[in-house]
Amino acid sequence: MADIDELRELAGQGRRAALILQAVPGGVRETALMAMADALRRAVPEIIAANREDADAARTAVDSGQMRDALYKRLLVDADKIEGMAIGLESLAVLPDPVGVVQLRCELDEGLLLTRRSCPIGLLGVIFESRPDAVPQIMGLTVKSANAVVFKGGKEAARTNRAIFTVLYRAGIASGLPEGFAGLVETRRDVEALLALDDCFDLFIPRGSAEMVRHVMENTRVPVLGHADGVCTMFLERSADPDQAIRLALDAKVQYPAVCNAIENLLIDEPLAGTILPPLVAALREQGVEVRGDAAVSRVVPDVVVATDADWSIEYNDLVVSIAVVADTAAAAAFINRHGSRHTDAIVTCSAEAARLFSGTVDSSSVMVNASTRFADGFRYGFGAEVGVSTGKIHARGPVGLEGLLTYKYIVEGNGHLVADYCGPQARAFLHRRPVDG
Amino acid sequence: MADIDELRELAGQGRRAALILQAVPGGVRETALMAMADALRRAVPEIIAANREDADAARTAVDSGQMRDALYKRLLVDADKIEGMAIGLESLAVLPDPVGVVQLRCELDEGLLLTRRSCPIGLLGVIFESRPDAVPQIMGLTVKSANAVVFKGGKEAARTNRAIFTVLYRAGIASGLPEGFAGLVETRRDVEALLALDDCFDLFIPRGSAEMVRHVMENTRVPVLGHADGVCTMFLERSADPDQAIRLALDAKVQYPAVCNAIENLLIDEPLAGTILPPLVAALREQGVEVRGDAAVSRVVPDVVVATDADWSIEYNDLVVSIAVVADTAAAAAFINRHGSRHTDAIVTCSAEAARLFSGTVDSSSVMVNASTRFADGFRYGFGAEVGVSTGKIHARGPVGLEGLLTYKYIVEGNGHLVADYCGPQARAFLHRRPVDG
Repeated sequence: MADIDELRELAGQGRRAALILQAVPGGVRETALMAMADALRRAVPEIIAANREDADAARTAVDSGQMRDALYKRLLVDADKIEGMAIGLESLAVLPDPVGVVQLRCELDEGLLLTRRSCPIGLLGVIFESRPDAVPQIMGLTVKSANAVVFKGGKEAARTNRAIFTVLYRAGIASGLPEGFAGLVETRRDVEALLALDDCFDLFIPRGSAEMVRHVMENTRVPVLGHADGVCTMFLERSADPDQAIRLALDAKVQYPAVCNAIENLLIDEPLAGTILPPLVAALREQGVEVRGDAAVSRVVPDVVVATDADWSIEYNDLVVSIAVVADTAAAAAFINRHGSRHTDAIVTCSAEAARLFSGTVDSSSVMVNASTRFADGFRYGFGAEVGVSTGKIHARGPVGLEGLLTYKYIVEGNGHLVADYCGPQARAFLHRRPVDG
Repeated sequence: MADIDELRELAGQGRRAALILQAVPGGVRETALMAMADALRRAVPEIIAANREDADAARTAVDSGQMRDALYKRLLVDADKIEGMAIGLESLAVLPDPVGVVQLRCELDEGLLLTRRSCPIGLLGVIFESRPDAVPQIMGLTVKSANAVVFKGGKEAARTNRAIFTVLYRAGIASGLPEGFAGLVETRRDVEALLALDDCFDLFIPRGSAEMVRHVMENTRVPVLGHADGVCTMFLERSADPDQAIRLALDAKVQYPAVCNAIENLLIDEPLAGTILPPLVAALREQGVEVRGDAAVSRVVPDVVVATDADWSIEYNDLVVSIAVVADTAAAAAFINRHGSRHTDAIVTCSAEAARLFSGTVDSSSVMVNASTRFADGFRYGFGAEVGVSTGKIHARGPVGLEGLLTYKYIVEGNGHLVADYCGPQARAFLHRRPVDG
């Protein structure tokens, strides 16, 4: 267990490494990622041995009711999973270097050139729960983007995290990455101390339960990239094809109910309620879904559980859905903007006008038209890798890939240009000519 | 004076307006900006009358030593200034609409199209001190970017702010902007209450003293765009042309010492110290600058004031500069990363290698090579309008134009696409084909 001084030392080292990493060439970072993949493959036996120890302790905790079975399953690592981690690192290695990319060039005046280049953010803090694959995944992203990182993993996977981290760290150092480019702390107690180090960290990325993410957001002055709740809603508009609507609702609710982009609410356009509710509720129940409904729903399907006001903003993460009838598309959008969590919401419709109104007024990071909310995901969006899904509107929003780990820097190159020459009655005018070649 | 309930009502109205503004067409916002410019021109007499009342009260405060003369001068408004405000609104009106711009398109699979479009952030809170031109300037930017805004101005310009605000607000409403698209509160007491409304505001933009900005940053959970300190440094590298170096140092220090992009520190590369320090210090003193120096500087120019450790991180905003001698470019960059405020720093050099090392490792939003730090400014960078200069690395960084007031939204359009079809042993593969035309 790291005490506060050790933690500050680790973060301070990370801060220094971040400044050095800015200037480490893309080739060195690419080589390091390849070396990390190789090292993981060579370390399969020791990683699995460490994981077995974590799994044995977790098994005891599950048996005595202190750990959920889902958590137990998430922490298991086998040779296939390790191979998957290695492949992930290799596919990041071969992506174009995202650092130093010219985003804007402008000739401010003769010989005075403005350039905006992408650059790393600095030191990231990643706080995650049982999944040990967070370590190779996020370390791959941070090395690729030239950021330094400090990981804080869960106690239940401590041995596995340490084994994977050590393999990757040694491979990185051997490839020329600076000391402290990544760090690892383990215990719950360290989280508070980590969150207080706002002079060291530039960004926190929590990955885990809504409760944990909310705790991070409420206890630090450092910006946080992520989302606490995923209260997603699907609206079945009057012109929707009923069969398609039911299929989409089932996919969005049932296919994987424990994830953030599954729906919690269904809204039914008033003219559609009488015809679609009976088959919709029947189909949901057939898949084991508990259906709650407002008064208008009860009038059509009398035996639904009555939804209370609190139901509309709850992330069940389970086979439960709440259904309400709304007057029209504008009312659906207003409902979502009031009760939702700005994550992902969907409309099923055959009206282009309704689709435009809905996607224009729903204030969420992803809006789906005739597609399942479950598509909201960095891999499905084709970003190659996902840092997380952000429901904040400042910096990256929605599923976030590598670009969420970058900021930019302006560089002005002149040959003795003075601002005094551009002021006063004889002021020179700026050219502001862009784009400039080269 | 607004009490808490009134304030919450104003912010709630702003939040509702923000949701409506998202869908207000660019043409309506353009017309509104033109109408605001016209209305300002027609209201010159009443604005000047209101300003005279503020000015009289301020004059009394200056005479009794309760207000600085600089503050008094900043609050004065005349017909020329009002014409400048009107021209500013017109030039924003004719810029291309920044809302709804397609930033990314990808065909995820046959018939499943991902689009990322720019969209407004929502409700902005703008807290500013005496300058009444903040109202038309920021209202122009928020209307152009389809955001709603609540202004909190300083007491000393309350009558002027109210007069300008009312003229602009009426013109906006008459042009079809939604009720509450902008709001104004006046007293100091309201700031705390405003900062606490984290369920209403998406972003705060403080414009004023470092003390005020720091107060905002430390007292809200809402993201803040801005900078508290501008501790900028210029490094004179060994290969620098001495005459050019001295001219640049003078421009960066003397041309307008009260602004954030003026320099507070000068670093001298060791081999240059003996020759450049005597003429440099003489030239600075000739312009009335107090020169402080470290021990190495004292050895060359014995009569400088000895700089203490605290000097290196102070924003003097005045004719004072601290000079230190450093071993090389890497030491200069390390000094700046330790003592600076990540705003703007400069190198004067004839070595491309030194320029590259410096701009690669200095962790600031703008880096100048052979140009004055004073160029770091949205207008000089050609952004058309400036929201402020951000020293944060999350979201917009450096001088921030209209794009800092925008976020984006992902829209996925399908025809009944289910995630279930992309999972399991018979999973469909994604195409991820981009770019797509249209």
